[in-house]
Amino acid sequence: MPDEMSRPLIQGSGDGGRYRYPEAATAEPSDPVIGILGTGDFSRSLARRLVATGYQVVVGSRTPKRAVALFPEEAEVTSQMEAASQADLVFVAVFPEHHSTLVGLKPALAGKTLVDVSNGLRLNQEGPSNAEQLADLFPESSVVKGFNTISAWTLQVGPRDGSRQVLLCSDSREAKSAVMRVCRRMGFIPVDMGLLSSSLEIENLPLYLFPSWRVPMLCTLCLFIFFYLYNFTRDVLQPYITAGKSAFYKMPIELVNVTLPSVALVMLALVYLPGLFAAFLQLTWGTKYKRFPNWLDRWLTRRKQFGLCSFLCAVLHAIYSLCLPMRKSARFKMLNLAFKQVKDNVEDSWVDTDVWRMELYLSVGIMALGLLSLLAVASLPSVANTVNWREFSFIQSILGYCALSMASLHTVLYGWDRAFTSAQYRFYLPPTFLLVLILPLTVLLGRLALFMPCVAQRLRQIRRGWERSRNIRFTLPDDSGCNGLEDVTNV
Amino acid sequence: MPDEMSRPLIQGSGDGGRYRYPEAATAEPSDPVIGILGTGDFSRSLARRLVATGYQVVVGSRTPKRAVALFPEEAEVTSQMEAASQADLVFVAVFPEHHSTLVGLKPALAGKTLVDVSNGLRLNQEGPSNAEQLADLFPESSVVKGFNTISAWTLQVGPRDGSRQVLLCSDSREAKSAVMRVCRRMGFIPVDMGLLSSSLEIENLPLYLFPSWRVPMLCTLCLFIFFYLYNFTRDVLQPYITAGKSAFYKMPIELVNVTLPSVALVMLALVYLPGLFAAFLQLTWGTKYKRFPNWLDRWLTRRKQFGLCSFLCAVLHAIYSLCLPMRKSARFKMLNLAFKQVKDNVEDSWVDTDVWRMELYLSVGIMALGLLSLLAVASLPSVANTVNWREFSFIQSILGYCALSMASLHTVLYGWDRAFTSAQYRFYLPPTFLLVLILPLTVLLGRLALFMPCVAQRLRQIRRGWERSRNIRFTLPDDSGCNGLEDVTNV
Amino acid sequence: MPDEMSRPLIQGSGDGGRYRYPEAATAEPSDPVIGILGTGDFSRSLARRLVATGYQVVVGSRTPKRAVALFPEEAEVTSQMEAASQADLVFVAVFPEHHSTLVGLKPALAGKTLVDVSNGLRLNQEGPSNAEQLADLFPESSVVKGFNTISAWTLQVGPRDGSRQVLLCSDSREAKSAVMRVCRRMGFIPVDMGLLSSSLEIENLPLYLFPSWRVPMLCTLCLFIFFYLYNFTRDVLQPYITAGKSAFYKMPIELVNVTLPSVALVMLALVYLPGLFAAFLQLTWGTKYKRFPNWLDRWLTRRKQFGLCSFLCAVLHAIYSLCLPMRKSARFKMLNLAFKQVKDNVEDSWVDTDVWRMELYLSVGIMALGLLSLLAVASLPSVANTVNWREFSFIQSILGYCALSMASLHTVLYGWDRAFTSAQYRFYLPPTFLLVLILPLTVLLGRLALFMPCVAQRLRQIRRGWERSRNIRFTLPDDSGCNGLEDVTNV
Repeated sequence: MPDEMSRPLIQGSGDGGRYRYPEAATAEPSDPVIGILGTGDFSRSLARRLVATGYQVVVGSRTPKRAVALFPEEAEVTSQMEAASQADLVFVAVFPEHHSTLVGLKPALAGKTLVDVSNGLRLNQEGPSNAEQLADLFPESSVVKGFNTISAWTLQVGPRDGSRQVLLCSDSREAKSAVMRVCRRMGFIPVDMGLLSSSLEIENLPLYLFPSWRVPMLCTLCLFIFFYLYNFTRDVLQPYITAGKSAFYKMPIELVNVTLPSVALVMLALVYLPGLFAAFLQLTWGTKYKRFPNWLDRWLTRRKQFGLCSFLCAVLHAIYSLCLPMRKSARFKMLNLAFKQVKDNVEDSWVDTDVWRMELYLSVGIMALGLLSLLAVASLPSVANTVNWREFSFIQSILGYCALSMASLHTVLYGWDRAFTSAQYRFYLPPTFLLVLILPLTVLLGRLALFMPCVAQRLRQIRRGWERSRNIRFTLPDDSGCNGLEDVTNV
Repeated sequence: MPDEMSRPLIQGSGDGGRYRYPEAATAEPSDPVIGILGTGDFSRSLARRLVATGYQVVVGSRTPKRAVALFPEEAEVTSQMEAASQADLVFVAVFPEHHSTLVGLKPALAGKTLVDVSNGLRLNQEGPSNAEQLADLFPESSVVKGFNTISAWTLQVGPRDGSRQVLLCSDSREAKSAVMRVCRRMGFIPVDMGLLSSSLEIENLPLYLFPSWRVPMLCTLCLFIFFYLYNFTRDVLQPYITAGKSAFYKMPIELVNVTLPSVALVMLALVYLPGLFAAFLQLTWGTKYKRFPNWLDRWLTRRKQFGLCSFLCAVLHAIYSLCLPMRKSARFKMLNLAFKQVKDNVEDSWVDTDVWRMELYLSVGIMALGLLSLLAVASLPSVANTVNWREFSFIQSILGYCALSMASLHTVLYGWDRAFTSAQYRFYLPPTFLLVLILPLTVLLGRLALFMPCVAQRLRQIRRGWERSRNIRFTLPDDSGCNGLEDVTNV
Repeated sequence: MPDEMSRPLIQGSGDGGRYRYPEAATAEPSDPVIGILGTGDFSRSLARRLVATGYQVVVGSRTPKRAVALFPEEAEVTSQMEAASQADLVFVAVFPEHHSTLVGLKPALAGKTLVDVSNGLRLNQEGPSNAEQLADLFPESSVVKGFNTISAWTLQVGPRDGSRQVLLCSDSREAKSAVMRVCRRMGFIPVDMGLLSSSLEIENLPLYLFPSWRVPMLCTLCLFIFFYLYNFTRDVLQPYITAGKSAFYKMPIELVNVTLPSVALVMLALVYLPGLFAAFLQLTWGTKYKRFPNWLDRWLTRRKQFGLCSFLCAVLHAIYSLCLPMRKSARFKMLNLAFKQVKDNVEDSWVDTDVWRMELYLSVGIMALGLLSLLAVASLPSVANTVNWREFSFIQSILGYCALSMASLHTVLYGWDRAFTSAQYRFYLPPTFLLVLILPLTVLLGRLALFMPCVAQRLRQIRRGWERSRNIRFTLPDDSGCNGLEDVTNV
């Protein structure tokens, strides 16, 4: 469901006439005259917004006569040279590969502020950035990088729905301040990103494709394939090979439905494993002032994504499970069972253990899903922004471990006594739930170990800045520090 | 579940005593003295907030002795004339129909800034706005429109939860700047909306009732009624008329459950149809600088709403489906089938085709729902704000088409070979799934056509600014432009 | 699923090298030199951010040689005295219990601005706050409280994801303005909270643990326990005691599943009850200028939480219900029924009333859940921020009452005629649905009473400021006021 943002922007999309300004009355002498070079969608949306905010706008085009129809009436559309001469602050909104065609404007742009709004077409890790190249072309102008993270559509409708930040950087403080004022007047929030050397980073920002989701997604996929093949071997291949029984109909639903919870539980354990690693490393080192290995560092920052992948699998598992009794195969099995019961003349087929096992693991499973849902809702940016630090760590740490325990219990109850019947070891492969439980139970035991008073106290000391190597038991004031994981102070 | 916002605001709701300020210390000479005319809820909340921010506040009331109890201690409550005289900047918070009662204050208010915070009672499309009428009444004052989009409750608790924008407009730049400063000091984000002629638009803003949802909702409703009646004729009326079999019990659940997915799939196709129209129009015209017809323009901006309506129907369809085996009717049918099976002495009633068909279409359907859920979550404002342009178009375009394909496949698998049995053409009406599939398959074919290399390349050229009529193959720099749909650059 | 925020912050976490600034070029003479006392995580993140924004930063440490490795290259790390002397504005980032160790710096800090960023370890209701104690220690400096609500992690990555507000307070306006400028330059939104006496409140903010959820959660829990025990007595204990029939297997799922909807419906009624109380109190008093009793006031502000608790119970009820046919117990019962039907030779066991009852109450229940979901989505902060006042009250008031009516109808249909069969009065206890319906039906009747023209008009008058005691029928302009509950104007 594409948002309005993705619609092709066409000039004058119906609300162009909303803002009407007598040309003279709006702009006061102190305001900069704003120039825009280029007549693409971005230029037009920018012009519309600037005019709405009350600025005097002059647009520079190679073919001003054709372009004039594309812009709001209040903006003056003229030649590039004329625009460059009139304006105090110039937005350069032409493709970066055409920056060189602007060199003729050099004298007119000298001493003025140029805003480079361009993006790259692909990730550029080495530089130089478009903005740096522009600065090389116009050494007498002050180049500010910015606005490239804002879409033309956001510019046109204004920042009404969701305040949008504009990242800016420049080597000239004055130029940056001037652009910041313009930015703020239009209702955006400028964020100072420092010198022009940050422009490469700013240009790359809109080109990333979910960088933080790559490893968690890959992890989910690999676990899914592994468990699917494992279950396929045990539940489909084994009966087919040993007894010639075809159970291939299980592939679309039943196999997926035993694979999904396995992935969900292992992924959930992977959310809490790196925190344990970090704690044990700190305990081993006796200090928190030593850097974690890179892989651990990155893992710690990806925990939210691991958790959400786990939640997605858990929800799909719930839906698949609820579909089970609806299937034709379930109906046929039931009818055949009824037939058999009648033929065998069994009046009551009730098995109390089976009933209890299922009632229990279903109930625990639903509660685990409920807790996971709360965690997922709390990780929505707008919800996470409204809770304070203590509430956040309560949700993610205490509720999270509750969910992990519940999900493990769900699996243990599902397994019941089946780990101890040799019939379950088809092809000598242990039942799936046994494999799945290894990691979560390890994590839960590790967490319990950290609860032991002596360990817990030492960890608390370390996280408040104590170091073994320094042989002192009290913390010097200037080494105090907050630890995000456990501590509510952030000093 | 009403939010705190909707509670009736009563003066001094318990936390009034939180902020205590010695009257002298706070306000410095440079700060404007703020006057408030009117003693309603909005006035009281505004006074509370201004006092908390450190301003000197003077409230003008017709009955200051009675009103004084309603305001925080630090605010001075006096007569309207006295307040108008003392203040530098005056909030006019009386009902607009009583603006005329303030004319006596004209001399005291001359040269001062008046902020009109009023709203209309109903949509006013023609004007003049309340603010323009106030400006006519007080030609010697500078009228600023604003704060009407903020509720009294948000004012009182401050903008802590979710930064709130304040839309402002005025013909006087100085007055507007002064109000912007006050705004910013209170923690709100002022947005400059230009001249006072925008005030009508600002006054209407709080009165709209989901304008962007009207057409999508209507569309959903019409499709629902059409498909419900169609299914009613085929599944209830036909058996009743031709065989006298009463199946009216199907009306609350089964009929709804075959109607909902039909609506969902057609609505999902309607999300992607306008994009295709736009692309084909651009290809036909050979330029992107021609305006789309109005209906297409509006349709393009409503795609998110169409998609969310489709998602709602899909979710309801999932819940209805999952309810099916729980019903008494399903149980009675099963028992009767078991009875029949025993009487006919059929040991195994398993039909492999039926089993496979159902396992497949259920599994594909769940995956389609999963993809739709991701799209729905990504359209939450707070989530949409955290993804960049490339990620957004990946989600809405690639994932969206995946969901559409999955949902179509779900329907095709559901239909299986039933399009080719004449028994399905009751009353000569084709099965519902055939009707439903027309639009989505058309959209998918149209999209495939756009993937053909020659078409795709031409479209890319057009969207980067190329025009057939100009007979040139390379883009002039000043005509370059981003297209929101396909392009990651926004220059 | 912990967010990145909760990772232990270690110096130089990989992206330290991103920002590189030649030391001389960045800071202009007009910018304050920023000092930081303390070398904890918060200090390091703050230094990183300030340097990235272009400030000259000097860090004061007791052991500068060891600390220098922890900070970005551009920050100067020196002794505390040296840092205090060089800086114009000093962040005090040491544990508050060590504030007294800084007294030696008093002369160096005289006349300068100190920013106290500390948090308390536990809620402090009496004061004095850390900031007030710091101000007592350094009477010649200007103390500003702030930044304590920001985590070290947010500081380090910058306010890119979700704009974060920084609450500030101080007795010195100039000092506060200086800190606000720094704040804004870093991309945060400063919110002026007034004088230093607000610092206690600001320090307590990060220590609250869901204060607004306490009563609603407790309410949910108590209702759950009550209804669970009630149902246990009726459905498990009674058959066991009177007939010796063991139905204990119902405890994990079936009992929970009849308890959850009871809690959900009562909680939903509790959302709308306080609004009725308020309306009837205002009608009785004949004025809206009288304060509600405290309990009602607090109840009114907790309605959103009550509603979300109700929604959670309703969703769990849906999942539990959908699980019912999947259980082994359901299967055994079905098989035994089939056996019985065959033995009794009943060809068709269809009971039309049973079928209709279930189809109807399921369908209505699903619709009620759908409406509740819309309400829940609308209460997400980011969604609530995008709707205007009229849309918000439409959702929460009209859709909310629709959901309440639907849910009551669902329960009535579920009950059907069972209130009139004496077999349902086990142990003389009425069926649960009868108890549950009392409150919602009362609320719906009360709401209907308010719709009566005479009552509705009187209420509207009162809410626009009319008072019985004043014996006038028209509203004076200065007493007009909006009422959040019913009125779209907010003047």
